[in-house]
Amino acid sequence: MNPTMTTLPEKEHPNKAFGWAARDPSGVLSPFKFSRRATGEKDVAFKVLYCGICHSDLHMVKNEWGFSVYPLVPGHEIVGEVTEVGNKVQKFKVGDRVGVGCVVGSCRSCDSCKDDLENYCPQSILTYGAKYHDGTITYGGYSDTMVADEQFILRIPENLPLDAAAPLLCAGITVYSPLRYYGLDKPGLHIGVVGLGGLGHVAVKFAKAMGVKVTVISTSPTKKKEALENLGADSFLVSRDHHQLQGATGSLDGIIDTVSAEHPLLPLLGLLKSNGKLVLVGAPEKPLELPIFPLLQGRKVVGGSMTGGMKETQEMVDFAAAHNVKPDIEVIAMEYVNTAMERLLKADVKYRFVIDIGNTLNATS
Amino acid sequence: MNPTMTTLPEKEHPNKAFGWAARDPSGVLSPFKFSRRATGEKDVAFKVLYCGICHSDLHMVKNEWGFSVYPLVPGHEIVGEVTEVGNKVQKFKVGDRVGVGCVVGSCRSCDSCKDDLENYCPQSILTYGAKYHDGTITYGGYSDTMVADEQFILRIPENLPLDAAAPLLCAGITVYSPLRYYGLDKPGLHIGVVGLGGLGHVAVKFAKAMGVKVTVISTSPTKKKEALENLGADSFLVSRDHHQLQGATGSLDGIIDTVSAEHPLLPLLGLLKSNGKLVLVGAPEKPLELPIFPLLQGRKVVGGSMTGGMKETQEMVDFAAAHNVKPDIEVIAMEYVNTAMERLLKADVKYRFVIDIGNTLNATS
Repeated sequence: MNPTMTTLPEKEHPNKAFGWAARDPSGVLSPFKFSRRATGEKDVAFKVLYCGICHSDLHMVKNEWGFSVYPLVPGHEIVGEVTEVGNKVQKFKVGDRVGVGCVVGSCRSCDSCKDDLENYCPQSILTYGAKYHDGTITYGGYSDTMVADEQFILRIPENLPLDAAAPLLCAGITVYSPLRYYGLDKPGLHIGVVGLGGLGHVAVKFAKAMGVKVTVISTSPTKKKEALENLGADSFLVSRDHHQLQGATGSLDGIIDTVSAEHPLLPLLGLLKSNGKLVLVGAPEKPLELPIFPLLQGRKVVGGSMTGGMKETQEMVDFAAAHNVKPDIEVIAMEYVNTAMERLLKADVKYRFVIDIGNTLNATS
Repeated sequence: MNPTMTTLPEKEHPNKAFGWAARDPSGVLSPFKFSRRATGEKDVAFKVLYCGICHSDLHMVKNEWGFSVYPLVPGHEIVGEVTEVGNKVQKFKVGDRVGVGCVVGSCRSCDSCKDDLENYCPQSILTYGAKYHDGTITYGGYSDTMVADEQFILRIPENLPLDAAAPLLCAGITVYSPLRYYGLDKPGLHIGVVGLGGLGHVAVKFAKAMGVKVTVISTSPTKKKEALENLGADSFLVSRDHHQLQGATGSLDGIIDTVSAEHPLLPLLGLLKSNGKLVLVGAPEKPLELPIFPLLQGRKVVGGSMTGGMKETQEMVDFAAAHNVKPDIEVIAMEYVNTAMERLLKADVKYRFVIDIGNTLNATS
């Protein structure tokens, strides 16, 4: 057992809840009874209908980042329908279609919070497995109900299907935010998207919706047809084909790199024009090798980005609704979750599993 | 002998010239007779009065980057007085105080050239050791005369001493340009300058002149007094003192890192605020280790920058004149150059050697 793993006794809240939890670093999920806090005056409570499976859920159930707390109810791509609102809630009412992403709390006073970047607040509270303001541990969306301060509740527009909307709340904002922040959102620009998984396929869709030309860069030549025909990418490069890469030298204004595995940055830097930006949104555990000459010779940058603030996340959801950007999903039943996790580990999904909580969670209880 | 080293027969130009050249990778410089092209219709010819010794001169005379051409006359921080102008020259006349920096030619048609960034033009022609448009090899400023197209000639304002102006043309623009490009030039911002050598000490002066708060970060505690009292830095951190670094976590908006030796980036990333920028202007030969989590968690970037375009270089020289930014120099005689190179290798100079070409070159011939 990992020495940093902790198992905490659960505090009894007034509202009963039911979900699936991992109990130890085996990561196996099973039915779990717990409780949610009473809906506070600024809280929005909702019935969970769908929850996306993010790759970080896989890391967390297995305590691969070393800070997991068990029992752990994962899920931070949560959508559903409002069932109760506190008396000081201003923006939501019972029946609204809403969602919760990666964060359910922050300090509200630091520079990041003041800049609507709660995601970078040093005291931001993750949606699951983190200590909330009241000292209790947060539980995620693999569960029948959810409650959060309205500051951290997102509105899902009517024309966005709830199941496809779920992955926007982590995968979507993770790629949308750097497209905006790094200025890779201008029509006529040409970007690369490295890795065609949950993050990458949404990056292609958002960039295309912004009028940006997109080249998908992948280790798998088999993904070419899919990238061009189904996702609308403009071109495709096999990242291990030096000849192909050579031919595309200096052609990209920026790259959204979604790969979490260790991989070389040098070939990617070579694809950038002068002033080009290589933005990493995956998180390789070990440091990567950074060659310096290519940075200097073209005034290039390597930057990072991690999800987005609440204001921008709402903007992203609204943009997705307006431009018909929908993640490609495979909807599964709750009881399939352990199999889904195994398939996710093998990247055997196009492109995001979404658990049909509303229709299948009770059936398994 | 390095296999990539080449020795070319010199083409005879009409104008006799005299300088000091390295003949082989020993790097030893000695008197050398050569020739300069006739002053073309858009050319400006000038008598060289001072030339700075840049650390890259040291790399080049020893062929450490593998593309040196011998005989090699170094020097790309060249200032002097105009002696002749071509009949289509518009901006300069005989007697003007002028200079030449790192580049003497470019394609004039690529995106970089159109954006006044000749320094990033893939066909830019270095001031020495490179093939010019006419096929001959360029010679630098360790010589009595210089000639260049007026596009690559800089005007040195009257109130800037010529000897101190010389290092601006490489060291100065190398640090000024990233301060501007990366937005680290706003009054009230707080930046770090890593390394207090030829580049670093000018970075401190420029940043202070822009109204920016400056922390010098150096491996040598002995430089603290100098940094604070003579250069006007606001604070000082010893880069190997983890306790000091810890106390400054998240305090900097940006860092200009002038260190060419291999060094860890992680502690520097830790000093940055969210959205902070670590800009490398030194060129370590081997890749550095880039930890990814710190980039993601604070949306930080690691970027590069290499000298600057002609328009910005003139702006920098004018800014230096207007704000009394003068590199600290040690003026030496031409015959001292080999000793100076040895001292430079040991960082034994505050902070830039400048050769008094005008008064000492002839004496050694």
